[in-house]
Amino acid sequence: MDFKWVKNHLEKTSASSNDTDSTPLATFEPLIKSGLKVDLVERGRVICSMKVPPRLLNADGLLHGGATAALVDVVGGVVIPTINNATSSGVSMEINVSYLDSAYVGDEIEIEAKTLRVGKVVAVSTVEFRNRKTGNIFAQGRHTKYLVVSSKL
Amino acid sequence: MDFKWVKNHLEKTSASSNDTDSTPLATFEPLIKSGLKVDLVERGRVICSMKVPPRLLNADGLLHGGATAALVDVVGGVVIPTINNATSSGVSMEINVSYLDSAYVGDEIEIEAKTLRVGKVVAVSTVEFRNRKTGNIFAQGRHTKYLVVSSKL
Amino acid sequence: MDFKWVKNHLEKTSASSNDTDSTPLATFEPLIKSGLKVDLVERGRVICSMKVPPRLLNADGLLHGGATAALVDVVGGVVIPTINNATSSGVSMEINVSYLDSAYVGDEIEIEAKTLRVGKVVAVSTVEFRNRKTGNIFAQGRHTKYLVVSSKL
Amino acid sequence: MDFKWVKNHLEKTSASSNDTDSTPLATFEPLIKSGLKVDLVERGRVICSMKVPPRLLNADGLLHGGATAALVDVVGGVVIPTINNATSSGVSMEINVSYLDSAYVGDEIEIEAKTLRVGKVVAVSTVEFRNRKTGNIFAQGRHTKYLVVSSKL
Repeated sequence: MDFKWVKNHLEKTSASSNDTDSTPLATFEPLIKSGLKVDLVERGRVICSMKVPPRLLNADGLLHGGATAALVDVVGGVVIPTINNATSSGVSMEINVSYLDSAYVGDEIEIEAKTLRVGKVVAVSTVEFRNRKTGNIFAQGRHTKYLVVSSKL
Repeated sequence: MDFKWVKNHLEKTSASSNDTDSTPLATFEPLIKSGLKVDLVERGRVICSMKVPPRLLNADGLLHGGATAALVDVVGGVVIPTINNATSSGVSMEINVSYLDSAYVGDEIEIEAKTLRVGKVVAVSTVEFRNRKTGNIFAQGRHTKYLVVSSKL
Repeated sequence: MDFKWVKNHLEKTSASSNDTDSTPLATFEPLIKSGLKVDLVERGRVICSMKVPPRLLNADGLLHGGATAALVDVVGGVVIPTINNATSSGVSMEINVSYLDSAYVGDEIEIEAKTLRVGKVVAVSTVEFRNRKTGNIFAQGRHTKYLVVSSKL
Repeated sequence: MDFKWVKNHLEKTSASSNDTDSTPLATFEPLIKSGLKVDLVERGRVICSMKVPPRLLNADGLLHGGATAALVDVVGGVVIPTINNATSSGVSMEINVSYLDSAYVGDEIEIEAKTLRVGKVVAVSTVEFRNRKTGNIFAQGRHTKYLVVSSKL
């Protein structure tokens, strides 16, 4: 697995990408992913970075907790194919996030996803959010996915 | 506490609302909340409904797991002031969601938030997502908030 | 499903029970379950009660958080066969618990487990702990189990 | 902070320790901790090891999920004073565990707790369980504690 598949999934968010073509009205995932840059892809590990954008702020001017959870979903899912080479990362079974500190607009943040387990049926990854300047971990989450999409859960 | 404060927080998402005035570029929360209708507000309980909109779909055409998590954040937060009459619902400490089934575009869904505990420092609520037609629970989450925003966590 | 299977699993903890016969040295589950009384079993729901025993206290004289988590495991598992009639409740994939208040030695507590979903592969239940006298919820958790024990996760 | 406080808390489980003196009937924590060996203590990190004992098995002969959760509580709590030098690690607010694989009786396991955040009011740690021989992570959890025990939550 090289950078390409992961980059394609995380960085391509424009209207011309395949994802948004096939579901033309979907704006949620592009909203979350826009600005994400893939810095590292290796077996079981993906590191992305982004500058906290105004569009993901809450009413207090901080990165919205719901946006952080959505990033756990997106980045925690994309790391799974680095192990099993699947073309899908399955469906979400469980997501949890601990919020440790605030992230402010313009902060350079780093999101590191690691697989904890990729089985035939279930995969689990951990996702850590760090402030690039301070090195401070400001959120950590876990993401469990069910991989066998074709069959019934 | 009557419907007003909760309705104002959940249903007012246009550019003329106070929230979006103060942070003019924020589009995340309006994106999540647009279309939410508050059906019940009572002490410790809020029920909302919405029709799953195309803008919250994932690439498979289902309600995005990240959007569900964001709804846990938003609806799980707004139920807290029905107990303590605070004008803020604090900052998120922890969110978790179990995804039990899919929700499709156009499905009428019901989101019920109940407080489990509202203390002076910490509040916890549970949020359940049901399909209105089938009564099926398709997601359940919990949301822990830290209430004393002025002081250090 | 009547009371029998559930009662047998939760209330039989003596050395003469089948479970402890087959693994004679295991003392953990009997330690957790001893004193549990099954009050209700119906499709998708089990209610048990117990008096908080000295053996499950922490150093502060309160019900140990680890014991509460173990009760989520035990009671959250036993409710699954009320739906699928399986003779095993599978293996744990995920457990989470929010601790809302303390429980003191001698407190009469009620533990209610409900299934959120029982599929062919995965089951999820929710477990709520209440003080019988005050009605106060002092803990709530969720338990996800993988049901197909014979195959690889 | 040197090894002493942590060793004392994790390794002293006999009847002559202070903890069990003050709550003479408590058997839960000694049951969990007996056999734990502290291998490393540094600022924000504790590594322990243990051989999976028969007393912590479930009916299938594997390390009980409830015992794993209790170890998250115990080891995830004891790492907090390595940062704030408190003599108490507070009360549990939330525990979650993902179970990734089984641990068998006699397996040498390693439990690593790291602090994610230690504030004035709240602390969060992560706890990872590894099989010493294979290096395999078989469980991972998070533990949130409320530190200000004297005041109301």
